Amino acid sequence: MPTAIDTLKEKGRRLRIDSIRATTEAGSGHPTSCLSAADLMSVIFFNEMRFDPKDPHNPNNDRFVLSKGHAAPLLYSAYAESGIISEKDLLSLRRLDSIYEGHPTPKIPWVDVATGSLGQGLSAGLGEALAARIDKRNYNTYVLLGDGECAEGSVWEAAEIASYYKVSNLYAIIDVNGLGQSQHTMDGLDVDKFAGKFRAFGWFAVTVDGHNYDEIVAAFEKCRREAGDLPRAIVAKTQKGKGVSLFENKEGWHGKPVPKQDLDKVLAELSQPFASDGFRPNLPQGPPARADEAPITITVNRRAGDSVATREAYGDALVKIADRSSRVVALDGDTKNSTFSEKLLKSHPDRFLEMFIAEPNMVGVAAGLSARGKIPFVSTFAAFLTRAYDQIRMAGVSRANIKFCGSHVGVSIGEDGPSQMGLEDIAMFRLVPGSVVLYPCDAVSTEKLVAEAARRPGICYIRTTRPKTAVIYSNEEAFPIGGSKVVRKSANDHATVIGAGITLHEALAAAKALESEGIAVRVIDAYSVKPIDAGTIVAAAKKTGGRIVVVEDHYEEGGLGDAVLEAVGNSAKVVKLAVREIPRSGPPDALLDKYGISSKHIVQAVKSF
Amino acid sequence: MPTAIDTLKEKGRRLRIDSIRATTEAGSGHPTSCLSAADLMSVIFFNEMRFDPKDPHNPNNDRFVLSKGHAAPLLYSAYAESGIISEKDLLSLRRLDSIYEGHPTPKIPWVDVATGSLGQGLSAGLGEALAARIDKRNYNTYVLLGDGECAEGSVWEAAEIASYYKVSNLYAIIDVNGLGQSQHTMDGLDVDKFAGKFRAFGWFAVTVDGHNYDEIVAAFEKCRREAGDLPRAIVAKTQKGKGVSLFENKEGWHGKPVPKQDLDKVLAELSQPFASDGFRPNLPQGPPARADEAPITITVNRRAGDSVATREAYGDALVKIADRSSRVVALDGDTKNSTFSEKLLKSHPDRFLEMFIAEPNMVGVAAGLSARGKIPFVSTFAAFLTRAYDQIRMAGVSRANIKFCGSHVGVSIGEDGPSQMGLEDIAMFRLVPGSVVLYPCDAVSTEKLVAEAARRPGICYIRTTRPKTAVIYSNEEAFPIGGSKVVRKSANDHATVIGAGITLHEALAAAKALESEGIAVRVIDAYSVKPIDAGTIVAAAKKTGGRIVVVEDHYEEGGLGDAVLEAVGNSAKVVKLAVREIPRSGPPDALLDKYGISSKHIVQAVKSF
Repeated sequence: MPTAIDTLKEKGRRLRIDSIRATTEAGSGHPTSCLSAADLMSVIFFNEMRFDPKDPHNPNNDRFVLSKGHAAPLLYSAYAESGIISEKDLLSLRRLDSIYEGHPTPKIPWVDVATGSLGQGLSAGLGEALAARIDKRNYNTYVLLGDGECAEGSVWEAAEIASYYKVSNLYAIIDVNGLGQSQHTMDGLDVDKFAGKFRAFGWFAVTVDGHNYDEIVAAFEKCRREAGDLPRAIVAKTQKGKGVSLFENKEGWHGKPVPKQDLDKVLAELSQPFASDGFRPNLPQGPPARADEAPITITVNRRAGDSVATREAYGDALVKIADRSSRVVALDGDTKNSTFSEKLLKSHPDRFLEMFIAEPNMVGVAAGLSARGKIPFVSTFAAFLTRAYDQIRMAGVSRANIKFCGSHVGVSIGEDGPSQMGLEDIAMFRLVPGSVVLYPCDAVSTEKLVAEAARRPGICYIRTTRPKTAVIYSNEEAFPIGGSKVVRKSANDHATVIGAGITLHEALAAAKALESEGIAVRVIDAYSVKPIDAGTIVAAAKKTGGRIVVVEDHYEEGGLGDAVLEAVGNSAKVVKLAVREIPRSGPPDALLDKYGISSKHIVQAVKSF
Repeated sequence: MPTAIDTLKEKGRRLRIDSIRATTEAGSGHPTSCLSAADLMSVIFFNEMRFDPKDPHNPNNDRFVLSKGHAAPLLYSAYAESGIISEKDLLSLRRLDSIYEGHPTPKIPWVDVATGSLGQGLSAGLGEALAARIDKRNYNTYVLLGDGECAEGSVWEAAEIASYYKVSNLYAIIDVNGLGQSQHTMDGLDVDKFAGKFRAFGWFAVTVDGHNYDEIVAAFEKCRREAGDLPRAIVAKTQKGKGVSLFENKEGWHGKPVPKQDLDKVLAELSQPFASDGFRPNLPQGPPARADEAPITITVNRRAGDSVATREAYGDALVKIADRSSRVVALDGDTKNSTFSEKLLKSHPDRFLEMFIAEPNMVGVAAGLSARGKIPFVSTFAAFLTRAYDQIRMAGVSRANIKFCGSHVGVSIGEDGPSQMGLEDIAMFRLVPGSVVLYPCDAVSTEKLVAEAARRPGICYIRTTRPKTAVIYSNEEAFPIGGSKVVRKSANDHATVIGAGITLHEALAAAKALESEGIAVRVIDAYSVKPIDAGTIVAAAKKTGGRIVVVEDHYEEGGLGDAVLEAVGNSAKVVKLAVREIPRSGPPDALLDKYGISSKHIVQAVKSF
């Protein structure tokens, strides 16, 4: 049932008052960015959205993403005016003991994804809208964007994918106040230009005066009437700081609260006290939440000695876990025939999302899918995941449940050269607090680790290899996260060699060569780079004279070598073999050798002790 | 003088033959991606561009960027057909000893920026076009893009900035062959939709049949006649593999060369042998290259004990080095009033480029500026540089000369919360081979290090701090890259405490507190995180019982702690204090304490030995 315009206006006035009080109490924050969007927010929250204020986990609630995360006080004010949180909660903004932080995070049960790094919200909202389609639910997703953040390319990545997949349950509301942090925005108040961009990208777009309630309400109705299967954009011309003469439409007030001494005057201008409030929530309807699924387990059936690329085993494992869990979804950036995620497309076409060559949006979409209970597996060449590092970082802040697979890592990819070689990926993913980094060396361990990753909540990264490698493990072997395998040992090992992925095979070759010279070495497969199996490594070091060689097809900083160094501290002497310069094109074996990580170099390092 | 259409056609035929021969000889590569663009390339290279084939360093040469870097053989073929390289060079494609790698890099003197990570070329070309404007030269920049890579948001970031600054000396040529690596592209062969997107972003756009020479030549002429001050896009409908029936317009041939046994048949279809060639290069005209400048030196004038944020000192230093060198240019992502790069805007408005909230393009533009001899300083919040990690990685491959400044690092930013905290930046920049990472703790060292960075070619990162810190150094102090400062020592130090930036001040406070308990410690300012001053650190460890505490406002992986660990090996016991979980909003001092990197925790760590 539509809310009366007068009630919406009253709600807008209260959102302004709340936003100002909270930021002045906190002594910091972005009230002017809240006020430009207060009227839009009132219509979205109190007229458009269907949600149960008592139940953030209702699976049929419409979703809301505050892409302009610095307007967090406006969002918290909307919670307050919905009866979700108390005035005391609201006024705890930005305090050390409050979940109402400077930018929203999912510590608040109503927040699906962390925002604050601009330009990411539309991707997350797209992910939630796609989840609704997969789950056959009728909720809408509303994303409130600032105009400044529309300069981020990721916004246009999301726009083109939403249009390609005709995601008509997605609304983007753009608050065009024309002022960025440090100056006017590129397009100023030219809402027609904004709408034109969205139309060129295949959206249905309407422009409105963002402070005129009749226009805003009518715009949503027009979308429902006319947009058909297109995603919908409402482009609103607004004024930063609207409603407060102290800073309305003035530069230099970004990120500055009303000073304490001006608060009473400002609140008086917003005509306190509260009028009575005719708002009644618009409750959602739809099927109940799905029952929990059994834990994901798979069986593996490989023949020892067969030659199989771990990237291909990744594809096989995806199919198996998708058979066991309806939550598994895969996304790829037009590399599915290289990462082998295409195997899932063939087996479960409804749970594969081609995201084309637009990695930042792909990761943002995955965060949205994760927020709706999916287990998204995101794959592309490892090198191109660097493109989405900000989205990966923010997925960490969101405590999202995303599994990443980077294929084509290191110099072992060969002739394509350095632009295609993932050499920073282990370090990048180790830097996400609480993350898991897995690097299997054969098909058996790959399949087992994909299942482990699916079971383990949080950010997991799986590193696969382009060339084929021999199957060395039996199908019954278990590969717990945080473990390792001692694949070769004797009573009189002279040193421990630690490898993972392709370098484990180089380590085995080195061990064989050393054996022929009468030198025994222990070999450890550190398939779990994070958490690293410190216990096994330290014990091996002790048994082998405190001598460790660690070898990886990755740059020298932040990878397996540093993980081992951290694990052993000063209890062993560690020789790190890693790539130490920008590599070049050439045959894989020649490159392993040229960059010092082949069996020959391992042999030399062991002898150097 | 325009080249005859017949000559251009002959050149196009030769480009096809060359591309196929080179990839078949190499046994890998992307000939079908070359063939769709061969006719466009012929017109660009042999009709449009003005360049001296004998002199890659002529400052007035038109610039060419192959954004679709996997079509490298086509580029090398154009060099061969321009007389720049020999047939032998061409046929060395992808060999270990050849500079003609799988994707272009500036090892080739004609290549300005490395490409191969898609969607970055338009940014680099925009940087070069902006450099022409700054230098008042009349060269044009031509960027050849694939259609698939236009899904990357960075393309649209570049498009909107080019239009905002009316960069009319920039041509984007889009090869719309409709086929990506793994399937059709999003927009297929809909060139009108592509052109519509460019128009919505403020470009002049023309569509053509990309295999019709009359249309292609006419499109460039139309741009010259009608585009005015807008950047120009030529959107060409093409066929992947055009001219070779084996794979013309067929899926499944991406990245696959003509098999050796089919080569003769394919070359016969392209009607060998060569016809005679009427091409004469169109030489450029313009002022000669500028004379070299004197090395950049600055003087510093701070008062010990004053409280100054290092980010503000960064802005002051920018102005000083810009006074000394016309090559210095600054770029910022709408944070110039926070990073203080706005000081350069005020002092040298012609050398400041507001790049708005679109970091990936900002870094790509910097790579283009660097290729034209500028020294670009790129600043934003450190957290948001993660957004551009792929561009940073590729700037490394390009051996670009770019200085990055990340402000607002670590938990010490306070209430804005984790989305705004740079906690991965040191690790990220250490991973670029040959990079320099600087982290000054006061205004004097900041200014000196900015000048050091400007003098040092390559990728340098400068980490600044949001809160004010005390000036502790004298104005005469030198801060060489690779050095450090022992800021406190005695004959009987119990341990060495290593800090940098804000934690150096925590280390000093800890030393003072420990002193009052009769415990002396040595304190080292590791302002050069990479290269790290291993000599000084190892010597200090030796003098202080092999006990080191290293403390940083950064995540625990890949930062200062790991750099120290790597430097000392097993010669000392290192306790690392760093941020180990995703932080939250709160007052800066409370957060330093909560996350274990305040003076109190340093005191505890020293006592734990």
